[in-house]
Amino acid sequence: MNRQPSDSFPHPAGLRNALEALASREITATGLAEAALHRAQACKQSLNAFAAIDGARALQAAAESDRRYREGSQRPLEGLPIAIKDLIDTRDIETLYGSTACRGNVPAADADIVKILTDCGAIVIGKTTTHEFAWGVTTASPSFGDTLNPRDHTRIPGGSSGGAAAAIAHGAVMAGVGTDTGGSVRIPAALCGVVGFKPTLGTLSTRGVFPLAPTCDHVGLLGSQVDDVRVLAEAVGIRNSHADARLSPRLGIVRQIAPVPLSAEIASAFDGAVEILAQDFACEDLGGTRRFDAMFDTVFDAFAAIVLIEGGIEHLRRHEWDRIATHYNPETVDRLRRAQAMDLRAYAAAQQARREFTARLHAAMSAFDFLVLPTCPCTAPRRDAGTVSIGDWTGTVREALMTYTAPFNLAGFPAISIPLPSRNGGLPAALQIVARPGGDAALLRVAQQMESLLGTACGAPDLP
Amino acid sequence: MNRQPSDSFPHPAGLRNALEALASREITATGLAEAALHRAQACKQSLNAFAAIDGARALQAAAESDRRYREGSQRPLEGLPIAIKDLIDTRDIETLYGSTACRGNVPAADADIVKILTDCGAIVIGKTTTHEFAWGVTTASPSFGDTLNPRDHTRIPGGSSGGAAAAIAHGAVMAGVGTDTGGSVRIPAALCGVVGFKPTLGTLSTRGVFPLAPTCDHVGLLGSQVDDVRVLAEAVGIRNSHADARLSPRLGIVRQIAPVPLSAEIASAFDGAVEILAQDFACEDLGGTRRFDAMFDTVFDAFAAIVLIEGGIEHLRRHEWDRIATHYNPETVDRLRRAQAMDLRAYAAAQQARREFTARLHAAMSAFDFLVLPTCPCTAPRRDAGTVSIGDWTGTVREALMTYTAPFNLAGFPAISIPLPSRNGGLPAALQIVARPGGDAALLRVAQQMESLLGTACGAPDLP
Repeated sequence: MNRQPSDSFPHPAGLRNALEALASREITATGLAEAALHRAQACKQSLNAFAAIDGARALQAAAESDRRYREGSQRPLEGLPIAIKDLIDTRDIETLYGSTACRGNVPAADADIVKILTDCGAIVIGKTTTHEFAWGVTTASPSFGDTLNPRDHTRIPGGSSGGAAAAIAHGAVMAGVGTDTGGSVRIPAALCGVVGFKPTLGTLSTRGVFPLAPTCDHVGLLGSQVDDVRVLAEAVGIRNSHADARLSPRLGIVRQIAPVPLSAEIASAFDGAVEILAQDFACEDLGGTRRFDAMFDTVFDAFAAIVLIEGGIEHLRRHEWDRIATHYNPETVDRLRRAQAMDLRAYAAAQQARREFTARLHAAMSAFDFLVLPTCPCTAPRRDAGTVSIGDWTGTVREALMTYTAPFNLAGFPAISIPLPSRNGGLPAALQIVARPGGDAALLRVAQQMESLLGTACGAPDLP
Repeated sequence: MNRQPSDSFPHPAGLRNALEALASREITATGLAEAALHRAQACKQSLNAFAAIDGARALQAAAESDRRYREGSQRPLEGLPIAIKDLIDTRDIETLYGSTACRGNVPAADADIVKILTDCGAIVIGKTTTHEFAWGVTTASPSFGDTLNPRDHTRIPGGSSGGAAAAIAHGAVMAGVGTDTGGSVRIPAALCGVVGFKPTLGTLSTRGVFPLAPTCDHVGLLGSQVDDVRVLAEAVGIRNSHADARLSPRLGIVRQIAPVPLSAEIASAFDGAVEILAQDFACEDLGGTRRFDAMFDTVFDAFAAIVLIEGGIEHLRRHEWDRIATHYNPETVDRLRRAQAMDLRAYAAAQQARREFTARLHAAMSAFDFLVLPTCPCTAPRRDAGTVSIGDWTGTVREALMTYTAPFNLAGFPAISIPLPSRNGGLPAALQIVARPGGDAALLRVAQQMESLLGTACGAPDLP
């Protein structure tokens, strides 16, 4: 088990158990919220994983949940504390999108995803940190301080939904909402040892989410274990149908995406996991053939161009350059400087490369139900790392961490990251599972099955 | 009166009268829908103003409306036939966005504006024609044929919501929904002699509307007279508050926006109208000072750059070039070819020019409640006109028609076009009234007051 032991939770392990304990009135929503708020404060101090914590609102909502439980009028997620990435609008709670440029921004309305979850009874404990405007994978901030990896404070938690992953790994909340434009849910989940799920592009509304690159932006869910993510996913309408049940799914194994090789730790953890999975699933190695590998060749460059142009458009339309240069972090200013040199011919070419990749991915997956690959080719880099070296490859932290995740944002295929068993208490490693568009519920089901085989699910309920 | 005489209407003149006649059961929704469908078919044949007419759905909805009237459970717009521009998604009705490239596109959901209006009981009679992807002001189409100006078939109806304006002027429906990115509601309203209203940017949701330039796109309303537009506006939440009532509004008169002068007809109609308005309103001429005129200098170029880049992004992300080149109209292909040469430095500069213009417009309007100017500097150009000459100015039809309207898309100020009294049965001329952001209801009220002073409202009710 590569996470906080369940006895450190102030509440039952697993959202379903918590809901049962609430329904049977073994615990109260107020007690659960108080414990979550207490741990969130500690998590804010130790890891800088929260941009804001709103105790008064949470306790008011919890009192309402307790009333509903007493009346028997509880909703599907009644009284469950969750955290929302600060890229996502929350009504009446200051929402900074990770930038001092947005000080004083108090949205008048909740984002669609927040409205749906709170209408289901979930309670927003606080806002988790994000890389500035979600435009980066470290959740480091010269303005607000870096968010720390709960497993090793000298390392990044990954990003841009770094605060959510850190808060869940810390045990402040069992689940949260993030966003994923090139891996921003899956990467921090992988580096912090939790579960991160990005549904099919367009499945969850992005209304009320600050855009990074609208054609790649996804709302995603994070949790301590797959079942926690499933509970939220079911509440927002991602449900199993009998039609997509398949007794023995076929897995296509992708061990590596060029040019970034796997570190020794990840290779060992991944190969060990595939060996276990092969006992229950039909597995076929997809990599190593030029035909397969070649389809990834232009993907990362296309992704980078699309994000630069779409992200550039979003910011340049909102703010004058003087304001950007003065108030944005230097890293974002540099990105927007480079964005201005881009023309729409590059955009057309990148979107064309994306369409071709998507068609080839569909074709490659025609004989498989799921792809299985590492989420990241290395464990969490050090916070002071400018570059990452793996084998004889050296590159940016960004390219190292996103090469395995961004292709599925371009294609819009649903993908989930689950922890791999770690060896000797090492840093978290993670498995990524990818399904075809629309296969979200089946993906969650198979991920839970794999989590069980790998022995990485949370422990048994440990009621207070 | 420069419109169809009211005795040609198969239904009471004015939406409020129609609603009253329905409520008192003098007429039925089914009768009203049948008459509208009959006229829409005639209008489709004579003017090519409808892309689709869905009689079965409309009659089914009308039967439901009649049932509700019988039960006394009618909604605010119960049984009113309306038309929706074919740029706007309608569930289960093929929606082509004016392009053969979109053949077979049947949206799964209504656009927000359609849902709101039909939830209020309005009945969609059909889809009105649009310039391809709303990217032009003539509503001419080499694929589907040109839409004709009901007042003179050799002339354009204006665009891009040309079908809606033509259908209303023809009497097929009393009101409809269009979109306005640079004048696309106000221009056809002006050239066809009806009323066109573009609310404050962001007031009406554009979800489910095919984007042209998202930062400039507005949903707008068209009607036979201001009160008809008010009825729809009230239903979608644009309502008067006591706070914005002002007894004697001050008008800033803008006679001309350089470099496009007024034609003799428009100058005469506009000056005559201002003379009438000056009897009831405090008027001040804002033009003629360099300080005021100069603020418009860079506006049109900024508008053109923003539309080219944002429009380019929207299409290049959706379709590969081969498909665009094969299926789009040559005019749109040419626009997208030019879009590809644009870079984001030009976008940043255009948005900066827009911000400066908006600030100057706010300042210029600080001493006024409304600006009053012509909607277009000329009457409807001939369909075969490649360019327009007014005085010693010659330019494109696009620049001629949009110079007076596009600035208020950039600034996001609400604006309405109402007919001017015409002389000797000439082609329609129109007055544009502009308010500050948020002043939508007050704008409608003052527009109705002016319409009454100018004597251009529809005649008295003429019940069947």
